Amino acid sequence: MSTNPTRVPQEERTRAMRARLMEATVECLVEYGFSGTSTTLVSQRAGVSRGAQLHHFPTKNDLVVAAVEHISTTRGAELAAAFAHAPTGVGRTRAVLELLAEHFTSPIFSAALELWVAARTDPALAEAVGPLEQRVGRETHQLTAAALGVDGNARGARELVQATLDLVRGLGLANTISDDTRRRARILDAWAVALDAQLLSSPDQSTTEGA
Amino acid sequence: MSTNPTRVPQEERTRAMRARLMEATVECLVEYGFSGTSTTLVSQRAGVSRGAQLHHFPTKNDLVVAAVEHISTTRGAELAAAFAHAPTGVGRTRAVLELLAEHFTSPIFSAALELWVAARTDPALAEAVGPLEQRVGRETHQLTAAALGVDGNARGARELVQATLDLVRGLGLANTISDDTRRRARILDAWAVALDAQLLSSPDQSTTEGA
Repeated sequence: MSTNPTRVPQEERTRAMRARLMEATVECLVEYGFSGTSTTLVSQRAGVSRGAQLHHFPTKNDLVVAAVEHISTTRGAELAAAFAHAPTGVGRTRAVLELLAEHFTSPIFSAALELWVAARTDPALAEAVGPLEQRVGRETHQLTAAALGVDGNARGARELVQATLDLVRGLGLANTISDDTRRRARILDAWAVALDAQLLSSPDQSTTEGA
Repeated sequence: MSTNPTRVPQEERTRAMRARLMEATVECLVEYGFSGTSTTLVSQRAGVSRGAQLHHFPTKNDLVVAAVEHISTTRGAELAAAFAHAPTGVGRTRAVLELLAEHFTSPIFSAALELWVAARTDPALAEAVGPLEQRVGRETHQLTAAALGVDGNARGARELVQATLDLVRGLGLANTISDDTRRRARILDAWAVALDAQLLSSPDQSTTEGA
């Protein structure tokens, strides 16, 4: 923290400007897709000059990766807070699945999906998106395991938590074209039962091993 | 079928040309993504004149939807044939999951994913992709239920089969950026055990109801 009081407003302005750019980028990705998103469009929407935008994020790839990373971190913290308020006892697993499904059908999922798919055919983008997805994936895994009350590194539980996250990713994708709410609710009901049964019968959870 | 023998070669040539266009379109979607795919690129790759290509598929959307539909149908038939040769008894479920995962990590999945994501922000494309995905989804559901030896319309079994397909869709998406083979194998091992346990304990499978 600077001890010079005159610098604080400038730092605050910069932080606010970066936050506006991040929000505008995610909004553009959601609305126009990766190919329809341009740095010009983003700076207009954010009300930030082209010069300032280019100073902070020289390329479109810099901008979109930073934005998805920033918003993922924010939304991850929101998910953690929501998990903390989920009911305990019977119904806990279903409630955790509901929160996960909400997370994977939210705008940030659509924005991340745009990046993910664009990275498939863009090696430079893939180099930035790969580590980001790994980090976010690992954090979501640990959060979810903790929310389900299991050791996410224990064999058996680890795979079931991963399967759960792959399931909600698939459900997120299914929801992008049409509203899949009713079908998704029935699937999550069935998954909650399967998950509870398997987690109860899975091998000793204290046998932690490397991921 | 025409009884005029002179028409047959022309029909065959047309059919072969359309098949080449379909294959080239899927290849372009896989290699360059939706935004990088153009009708010019496709006709060049297929060795088909621009005029002939435009005659059969006036727009890029016509071409990509027809291509993904055609190749999905072909690959769906291949999946059905593979299911028919899967081992019976113990290991059947895991083998069926393996074949599904291969299907959802193949190039046609990448091509379909490109269409799916592009359709998210392109209402005209969404109008064509929606019904296609519904039809393909329904067929894959029936195929998978039959392969698992359950009634895909029976409550309980229906949701477990759908969850399985959403899981492999999520796994397919996870595989687009990095090779996810080892992690996927462990997840499918765990899900095969859970699925068998749940299908055995699910409600009376003869209670068929509407989907």
